[in-house]
Amino acid sequence: MATEIKPSYYNNNQSKTMKTSRLEAFSDGVLAIIITIMVLEMEPPKTFTLNALKPIFPVFVSYVLSYMYVGIYWNNHHHLFQIVEKVNGKVLWANLLLLFSLSLLPFATAWIGENIEEKLPMMLYGFILLAAAISFKILVHTIIHTEGENSNLTKVYQNDKRLLISIGGYLLGIGASYFLPIVGLFIYLGVGFMWLIPDKRIEKALEK
Amino acid sequence: MATEIKPSYYNNNQSKTMKTSRLEAFSDGVLAIIITIMVLEMEPPKTFTLNALKPIFPVFVSYVLSYMYVGIYWNNHHHLFQIVEKVNGKVLWANLLLLFSLSLLPFATAWIGENIEEKLPMMLYGFILLAAAISFKILVHTIIHTEGENSNLTKVYQNDKRLLISIGGYLLGIGASYFLPIVGLFIYLGVGFMWLIPDKRIEKALEK
Amino acid sequence: MATEIKPSYYNNNQSKTMKTSRLEAFSDGVLAIIITIMVLEMEPPKTFTLNALKPIFPVFVSYVLSYMYVGIYWNNHHHLFQIVEKVNGKVLWANLLLLFSLSLLPFATAWIGENIEEKLPMMLYGFILLAAAISFKILVHTIIHTEGENSNLTKVYQNDKRLLISIGGYLLGIGASYFLPIVGLFIYLGVGFMWLIPDKRIEKALEK
Amino acid sequence: MATEIKPSYYNNNQSKTMKTSRLEAFSDGVLAIIITIMVLEMEPPKTFTLNALKPIFPVFVSYVLSYMYVGIYWNNHHHLFQIVEKVNGKVLWANLLLLFSLSLLPFATAWIGENIEEKLPMMLYGFILLAAAISFKILVHTIIHTEGENSNLTKVYQNDKRLLISIGGYLLGIGASYFLPIVGLFIYLGVGFMWLIPDKRIEKALEK
Repeated sequence: MATEIKPSYYNNNQSKTMKTSRLEAFSDGVLAIIITIMVLEMEPPKTFTLNALKPIFPVFVSYVLSYMYVGIYWNNHHHLFQIVEKVNGKVLWANLLLLFSLSLLPFATAWIGENIEEKLPMMLYGFILLAAAISFKILVHTIIHTEGENSNLTKVYQNDKRLLISIGGYLLGIGASYFLPIVGLFIYLGVGFMWLIPDKRIEKALEK
Repeated sequence: MATEIKPSYYNNNQSKTMKTSRLEAFSDGVLAIIITIMVLEMEPPKTFTLNALKPIFPVFVSYVLSYMYVGIYWNNHHHLFQIVEKVNGKVLWANLLLLFSLSLLPFATAWIGENIEEKLPMMLYGFILLAAAISFKILVHTIIHTEGENSNLTKVYQNDKRLLISIGGYLLGIGASYFLPIVGLFIYLGVGFMWLIPDKRIEKALEK
Repeated sequence: MATEIKPSYYNNNQSKTMKTSRLEAFSDGVLAIIITIMVLEMEPPKTFTLNALKPIFPVFVSYVLSYMYVGIYWNNHHHLFQIVEKVNGKVLWANLLLLFSLSLLPFATAWIGENIEEKLPMMLYGFILLAAAISFKILVHTIIHTEGENSNLTKVYQNDKRLLISIGGYLLGIGASYFLPIVGLFIYLGVGFMWLIPDKRIEKALEK
Repeated sequence: MATEIKPSYYNNNQSKTMKTSRLEAFSDGVLAIIITIMVLEMEPPKTFTLNALKPIFPVFVSYVLSYMYVGIYWNNHHHLFQIVEKVNGKVLWANLLLLFSLSLLPFATAWIGENIEEKLPMMLYGFILLAAAISFKILVHTIIHTEGENSNLTKVYQNDKRLLISIGGYLLGIGASYFLPIVGLFIYLGVGFMWLIPDKRIEKALEK
């Protein structure tokens, strides 16, 4: 009966499979909070000279780094779910795993911001980037396993070279941080810059 | 007149009954914030040795536990509202009651994180899980009362054995925490793991 | 040309007037944050006895009060925008004014939580409730002025007795707080309870 | 095959180009958090006299100023994306740049709130407003470059006099703050008030 009263509504929201829209909305919420609470680490100095801003500089640098990474993941998540059509319980949990990894970023960001020349915080930061990259890979695999027939998705993500290079980069950065933390920082930055180049594959796949 | 200019818009958003979309969006927002602010309890240590991370370990464990539980509720909420078609004022308030219970989780999480071997925090944590489970049950009943004719919903949620087992589990965990808090923690974890197995009933009900 | 490629998309999102969806999403975000950050005021005690929870009790009471009020406003906002069809710049700003009033609630909540028997915090709390109620009235008037022809809206909100009674109640509560803050608290609670009774008018208006 | 099962869903969400809806949702989330966390700077005083509220007054003034500015940007963002039809990776990043500039506002707000008569915080505040205005200009240019054929967009935003006047105003405010910070504050306020007048151009363009 309800279907008779509002047919177009029923078609849109009560389709046979679970839509991606709520997963996207929840992820947007979590990522929006992660990206914004990190700025709270930058406490306003109690004095009002340029010198007072100096100790905030490393905090600012680590904020920029983490902002870039959350931006990258939001971007990739956005692109990924452009071509995903349905989700199930496993995909929801794989997505929650990715968000969990990224939720640890503010902690590591605050720690490297306290002393950007210490090796342990910089290595931990790399481990979290590594965990996020692996989580993203797990998410993609879970989705491919769910969607099977979606050729676009498999074509674009099956051999995601950029993700594999990133994982190698993070491992290298963790190792470098053990000897010289600032080198690790630059490696993480470098891997991030690689992701700023927009991935045209999905946009192309959508246009075809 | 307005209906004549934009008929498809009118059908979608101005349907005769109140849609679930905004309730879902608001819940997503609240749950996203709850899940993310708990990580703020993990304050970065002031020193940079592995030992400095030790006191953070129980905080991390309690974060993982609470992240899992908020994830479970988001998942269940997501599944539930896949088959709900309309809401009214009572449903909105029943939903706000569930969110209220869950909003107390960061407080209890922070308290058990401070000393994971104390009985009172661990018992309080169990009470909050209990309150959330009961609130979810109230929400389901309110929805069933509103939707009446929706047989899918009644079939899936009328006798939700998993929820009843959980309520028993939380009571057991609260009791166990009185004698040995760490046992309570493991009971809460165990009940949580039970929910990680995706509930296929809704996905099946939607496919039929 | 674009309309030819994706006609149904164009109809939905590029309708001639500005839709309410984004105003609703932004308001949901702000209200979700307001309702959740207030719980951060409840700091976990450093000891683990029942006595340690005692000083938290007034903080908890003020959290419950404010949670109820943000819930009420979300509910009313939800109902209001069920029958609003278009927005313009003035409506956006009237809505921002309402959110501004409500954003001051966490401050007042924290202050009354510190000492629930002090008159100034309790009076300030009442002033903020008053400001929120007046802002809601301004929002309704701005929308009615914009929508003109929407008879449903005018019929339901033109003489909103409950809102007028509330404004009277807040003034009474502010006055009472000057002499006995706890009486003010109960008046605010009482006015809030009045709003928990769902407003059937909109649901009825939608069903007609 | 999937298109055959749920044609209307496919048309809405899987259109050939990337929709703006998720960019809008994420931006709403970030702006909602920015606008709300600033209120946390207003810490409730430990005493309960009118005098105790005095030191909070400059914090309140800076909150009002920043609330107004985030409101302005949300408003402008809302209007802008009313007439944007598709996004690509570059637009996503230009949008993230704008959100980054605005995410620095809570820091500067807290700093001017600490001492509203100091020149450095007030100058920094102006620089952030300047960065936000330039980022908005970059976002508009990136969108125009992507959408090319969308004449509405070019017509409305190509020569955005108000934005250019604002940039001049911020520069003036930064200069004035060097000599007399309070003058800078009033200039920022004045530029903000200019934006409160709703921009009818987009509403008109949509109506045509």
